[in-house]
Amino acid sequence: MPSSSSPPQPLTPQDFRLACRNGTHNTTTTLTIPTVQCNLLALPSRYASSFAQLCGRNPVSCPLLYSTLPGNPTTPLAPGANLTTDLPKYNVYKDGKLLTPDGTASVEEHWTRDHVGFLIGCSFSFEWALSAAGLPPKNTLCVPVKCVPMFRTGIPLSSAGEFTAGCVVVSMRAYKERDVEEVRRITRSFRRQHGEPVAWGWNGARMLGIEEKVRKGLVDFGEWVEIDGDAGEVPVFWGCGVTPQVAVMESGIEGVVISHVPGCMFVTDVPVEEEEDPSHKL
Amino acid sequence: MPSSSSPPQPLTPQDFRLACRNGTHNTTTTLTIPTVQCNLLALPSRYASSFAQLCGRNPVSCPLLYSTLPGNPTTPLAPGANLTTDLPKYNVYKDGKLLTPDGTASVEEHWTRDHVGFLIGCSFSFEWALSAAGLPPKNTLCVPVKCVPMFRTGIPLSSAGEFTAGCVVVSMRAYKERDVEEVRRITRSFRRQHGEPVAWGWNGARMLGIEEKVRKGLVDFGEWVEIDGDAGEVPVFWGCGVTPQVAVMESGIEGVVISHVPGCMFVTDVPVEEEEDPSHKL
Repeated sequence: MPSSSSPPQPLTPQDFRLACRNGTHNTTTTLTIPTVQCNLLALPSRYASSFAQLCGRNPVSCPLLYSTLPGNPTTPLAPGANLTTDLPKYNVYKDGKLLTPDGTASVEEHWTRDHVGFLIGCSFSFEWALSAAGLPPKNTLCVPVKCVPMFRTGIPLSSAGEFTAGCVVVSMRAYKERDVEEVRRITRSFRRQHGEPVAWGWNGARMLGIEEKVRKGLVDFGEWVEIDGDAGEVPVFWGCGVTPQVAVMESGIEGVVISHVPGCMFVTDVPVEEEEDPSHKL
Repeated sequence: MPSSSSPPQPLTPQDFRLACRNGTHNTTTTLTIPTVQCNLLALPSRYASSFAQLCGRNPVSCPLLYSTLPGNPTTPLAPGANLTTDLPKYNVYKDGKLLTPDGTASVEEHWTRDHVGFLIGCSFSFEWALSAAGLPPKNTLCVPVKCVPMFRTGIPLSSAGEFTAGCVVVSMRAYKERDVEEVRRITRSFRRQHGEPVAWGWNGARMLGIEEKVRKGLVDFGEWVEIDGDAGEVPVFWGCGVTPQVAVMESGIEGVVISHVPGCMFVTDVPVEEEEDPSHKL
């Protein structure tokens, strides 16, 4: 029987979502199923237009894949799935405050007929391609698998409507400096999954305003994974779909907002290969 | 006869471009003709794909309206126009260095059969709407009209291919704090012309890393216009199409790159009303 310390290895995305629904998988979804993974954000319909504009103005942080009809927590990206039960763990915010500090297994009682859900691409979707190229993220090699480290940067979002605060959040994976160009090349074609890194190296960390946090391993979300400077490793940073949660928390959005717990994503039926955009290969 | 100190008031965009071609208009295009204005960037074709990706990843700074075929400096946005002669003034870069510190009136000799031109939206396109609403930018009220002040921020671009350096550039217009929401509302619907402001107020200036430059009036491009704090004015910042010039200068792009001089835009035939996107009105 799978437990939170040894993630299950189900065969299909449907099986995997059922394990999430049953509570048997309640931890990170890194390298679980080779399908596209998504960030979730659901909010009252009066904010839906502004939120879509926030995504359009900040597409590297918030690449929008799908938005639901109000009150209908389903998506053609995963027929049969229920967005209120089929993620490993959820955050629920009310008036910008986190109601569920330990996460919650279901949001059926919170997702009203007025809630619109947004699915946003996730960098976990390209971890398979990195692994297949002999460049697996280090967090995926840990036993048990760790969630990728994530940091709030000093970079403000481009404002949109009610979303006037918040900052860019990035995920970090350590790579040898000589591998950075190949890592950029591989991830570039996953443009709806944050695409290529936004910045890399210690100079990149400085530009993002997070050098000290990264040097000290002070993650804002996820789990810390060492950067082995002696082996020539440097931090590499990608856009991250935790960004809209921060925008919701800091922009004074009223009412109930539902999201995934960082690292605990919605697993779709879409094979990751379908997200590779050949026009974005160089 | 018009001179650079008293801009002409031609009736049609065609007339206006002819005045630019003849050298009779060689200064800012602010509030000249009520059609869409564009930033220009032309570069060797081997960089065209990366540049398009840079625009896609940074759409608030670089909203891409049109890209030409290699060697063909024309556009359906202004039939009959020639992009190598019809702007008031050009910058020419070679290997990232500015060849023309005073600008040049024509780039016919520099635009090779290998050059691809990109037209990028410009905030001048919504100055008419602001003026019509009784909220004219102060620089447009100066006699003669001033070019809007522009600043290089501390915000890095999301990297794309060869474009791995540079920063977000913003234009600044001073408004009374009580008018900011209306100014946001008006400009929001011009989403391909940088849309609503990215930030505003002195806190916004701080977030962009430019508070000191703005307080001291130390513009990076354009002309300084006072902010009257006693009258309740605060700075308001929009994305700016000078951004790709900085990216080109700082990313080690080889060969000849052609651009407009900041504030001296390409005037199209497209009426500004056509750029208003009703789906972006709130």
